[in-house]
Amino acid sequence: MHNLNIDADRLWASLMEMARIGATDKGGVCRLALTDLDRQGRDLFRRWAEAAGATVTIDPIGNMFARRPGSDPDAAPVMTGSHLDTQPTGGKFDGVYGVLAGLEVLRSLADRRIETKAPIEVVVWTNEEGSRFPPATMGSGAYAGALDLDDLLARTDSEGVTVAEALDAIGYRGTAPLRGGPVKAYFEAHIEQGPILESAGKTIGIVTGAQGINWYDIVVTGQEAHAGPTPMPGRRDALWCALPLIERVYDLALESGPNGRATIGAIHAHPASRNTIPGQLRFTIDMRHPDATSLAAMDAGLRAAVAALDASGTVTAQLEQVWHCDPTPFAPDLVEAVRQGASRRGLPAQDIISGAAHDAVYVSRVAPTAMIFVPCEDGLSHNEEENATPADLAAGCNVLLDAILIAANA
Amino acid sequence: MHNLNIDADRLWASLMEMARIGATDKGGVCRLALTDLDRQGRDLFRRWAEAAGATVTIDPIGNMFARRPGSDPDAAPVMTGSHLDTQPTGGKFDGVYGVLAGLEVLRSLADRRIETKAPIEVVVWTNEEGSRFPPATMGSGAYAGALDLDDLLARTDSEGVTVAEALDAIGYRGTAPLRGGPVKAYFEAHIEQGPILESAGKTIGIVTGAQGINWYDIVVTGQEAHAGPTPMPGRRDALWCALPLIERVYDLALESGPNGRATIGAIHAHPASRNTIPGQLRFTIDMRHPDATSLAAMDAGLRAAVAALDASGTVTAQLEQVWHCDPTPFAPDLVEAVRQGASRRGLPAQDIISGAAHDAVYVSRVAPTAMIFVPCEDGLSHNEEENATPADLAAGCNVLLDAILIAANA
Repeated sequence: MHNLNIDADRLWASLMEMARIGATDKGGVCRLALTDLDRQGRDLFRRWAEAAGATVTIDPIGNMFARRPGSDPDAAPVMTGSHLDTQPTGGKFDGVYGVLAGLEVLRSLADRRIETKAPIEVVVWTNEEGSRFPPATMGSGAYAGALDLDDLLARTDSEGVTVAEALDAIGYRGTAPLRGGPVKAYFEAHIEQGPILESAGKTIGIVTGAQGINWYDIVVTGQEAHAGPTPMPGRRDALWCALPLIERVYDLALESGPNGRATIGAIHAHPASRNTIPGQLRFTIDMRHPDATSLAAMDAGLRAAVAALDASGTVTAQLEQVWHCDPTPFAPDLVEAVRQGASRRGLPAQDIISGAAHDAVYVSRVAPTAMIFVPCEDGLSHNEEENATPADLAAGCNVLLDAILIAANA
Repeated sequence: MHNLNIDADRLWASLMEMARIGATDKGGVCRLALTDLDRQGRDLFRRWAEAAGATVTIDPIGNMFARRPGSDPDAAPVMTGSHLDTQPTGGKFDGVYGVLAGLEVLRSLADRRIETKAPIEVVVWTNEEGSRFPPATMGSGAYAGALDLDDLLARTDSEGVTVAEALDAIGYRGTAPLRGGPVKAYFEAHIEQGPILESAGKTIGIVTGAQGINWYDIVVTGQEAHAGPTPMPGRRDALWCALPLIERVYDLALESGPNGRATIGAIHAHPASRNTIPGQLRFTIDMRHPDATSLAAMDAGLRAAVAALDASGTVTAQLEQVWHCDPTPFAPDLVEAVRQGASRRGLPAQDIISGAAHDAVYVSRVAPTAMIFVPCEDGLSHNEEENATPADLAAGCNVLLDAILIAANA
C-alpha cells in the first residue's frame, strides 16, 4: 500500500474560500442552484481542477466532470464528488466537502505525480438541494436516467425561470454527453448531517446504504369565515381540523422504530389573515426509513389518516406523493474499500445508514457506489451553523484517497 | 310615526354596482384599503352622495363624511356608515352594506324631501379590515382618538408604502378636522358575519354590544436540521414542539363557553424547505369573548401555555400581544331605537353580541352607538361566497331609517 496523505490545510483553506461565495451574516452559505453565486463557485472549482491537471467537461444538465487520465486507456473512470449548491440557510460543508475532498485527492496525486490505472473524475452534480428548482438531486438523477432531461430543463423556479434558462444564464448548459460511458466506481464523501458519529465518538461513517424517502404535499380544505362571529362548533377551520393528521405524521415515525423520520418542513394557512378562519391548509411531509417494509407501513398509515380526515365531513383532505426513493444498499466491495481505508489508518469507524438523499443514491443505479461520512457538530446541517473539524474532514479525505486508489488500481 | 320605506331595488342595485369594483372570479371582491380600486369605490360613493344632496368632506386619515343638513343649526349630527375596503378574498356586503344602507336612507329622505331636525352624515371609515395596513379599524380608531394619527400615517404595507403615501396617491388625504364636533348618535348596519340569525330564523339582530378581542403573535424557536439523518428524539422541531400550544389555543376557546372564539389565521414555518426540520414557527392568534373576565381567563391560559413551552428546554416560545379591545356595551337608548324599528315593522328580531370588530366599537368611545345586523348565508364572511338576501338587506335598511329618524328628531 501507499503512504500518501492529503494536505489537510489546503483542503480546509479551499473549503473556507468556497464558503465566501454566498456567505451569510450568520456564518452560513446561501448559494442556490444555477444562480450567479453558483456560477462563481463552479468557476472557482474549474480553475482549481484545471490547475491540478484535470480537463473539465459539462453535460446538458450542467454536471461538471474534472478528469485526470489513467494509464489504462480502456479503463472506466473512478468517480467522486458531490454538489456545490446549498439550502437557502445552508452551511459551508454540505456537498461542498465531497467536491473539494475529491479535488484534494486530485491535487495530492498531481503533487506526487502518481499515476492510476483508471482515470479519476471529480464531479459537481447540479442542483442537489432542489431548493430553487424541485426536484432535489436533479443532476445525478438525470445522469442516472432516473429523471427525464427535457422535463428537468423545463422546470421553473418561483419566478418562472426555467432550468434551461438558468443554465444558459450562467454558461453551464454543456454539450458533453449526459452519460459518456461506464463508471468503475463512485465514492462520495459527505458530512453525516446527523448526530450519530459525534455521539458515538467515531471519525468515519462507513455508509452501507441510504434510507428510502417519500415526499408528499397535503391540502386540507375547509371554509373561510370571520374569526369573530363564527361559533367554535361548526367551524370548518382547515388548520384546527388538520391537527390530528399533523400529530399522526410524527407518531408514524415514532412507531416505526429508531430509524423512522417524519418532518413537516413547510406549512401555510390560506388566506393568512389573522381574523379569518383559514379555509385551506397546505403542508409538506418528508418521511424516511432504511427498510422498505417499514417505509411502506408509514406510507399506508399516512394515507389512512388522510382518508379518515377526508371522510370526516368537516374538511376535505388530499395527498399528493411528489417523490419516492427506494432504500438503497451500496456496493459491498466499495463499502469494504472504505472500511479498509479507515482500518489501515486506525480511525474510529462504524457502519451507518445515510438518512439524507445524496447524489450517490441516483448514481448507484448506474455505477457501483459507496459513501464516506465524517461527523458534523451537533449533527446540524441545512443550517447556517453547520460545522465540522479540520481533522475529521482531513481523515475522511484520506479514507477517500485510499478507497479511490484501491478501486482505480484494481 | 312616518310610513316611509327605503327603495329595496335601488339598494340592491347599488350594492351590485359597487361589487364590480374589485370583483373576483369567484364572485367575491378584493378591494384593499387605499388601492386604486378603493379610490374607485370612494369616487362612486361620493358621486352618489352628492347626487342625493349631501356635501362630502374628507379628514386626514381619509374618512369620508357625506352630510345632509338638518333644520336645527345647533344639533349634532346623527351618523351612520361603515367601510368600503375588503379582505383579500372578501365579499360584496361586509362593510359596503352599512355604507350603502346609509346612502339609501339619504336618498329616501331626499326623494320625499323629508327634513330632519339633526343633520345626517353617512361615513366611510378608512381601512377597517387592516389587511393591507395593520391595524384594523384604522379610520374609526383615529377618529375616536384611540389610535395616533401620525403613527397610523407612517404605517407601511408589505411593499413599504406608507398610509400617508397611499392616501396621497388616491387623493383621499383630506383637510377636514379629524373630529369636527360632537355626534348625537351613531348607527352601523352590517351583515352578521356569523350563523346565529340565519339558524334562528331572525331577520334583525339588535346588537347590544361587541366582544372583547385580543390579537397575539407567537414565535417558537427550535433548531433547523436535516430532515433525513436527524433521529426523532432530540429534534428541536419548532412545529412539532408547538403542537400542544396550538391545541391549547382552541381548547381555551371551548372551555370559555359558547361565546369564546379562537382562531389561528396565519402560520409559517421557517425556512419552509421540505427537507429541513423547521427551526422557527410563527403564527397569529385571535381570541374573543364578550365577557371581560372570561377574556382575561383565556389570556392567562394562553400566557401559561406559552410559558410552559418556553420552559420546556427544547424550544423557546415568545408571545407578543399586538392588539386588545375591551368588550363594548352599546348605548341603551339607541339599542332601544333599533328594537322599536324592528318591532314596528313586525320583523323577527333577537338581541345579539357582535363577534367581529367594527368601526362602531371605536366610535362608541366618542358617541352613543348601536348596530343593526342582518343574516348572511351560512354565516359566511371574509369569504368570496359571502351572500345576503335583498329582502333581509332591505329590512335592515328600513330599521336603520327608523332608528335614524327617531334619533335625529328626538
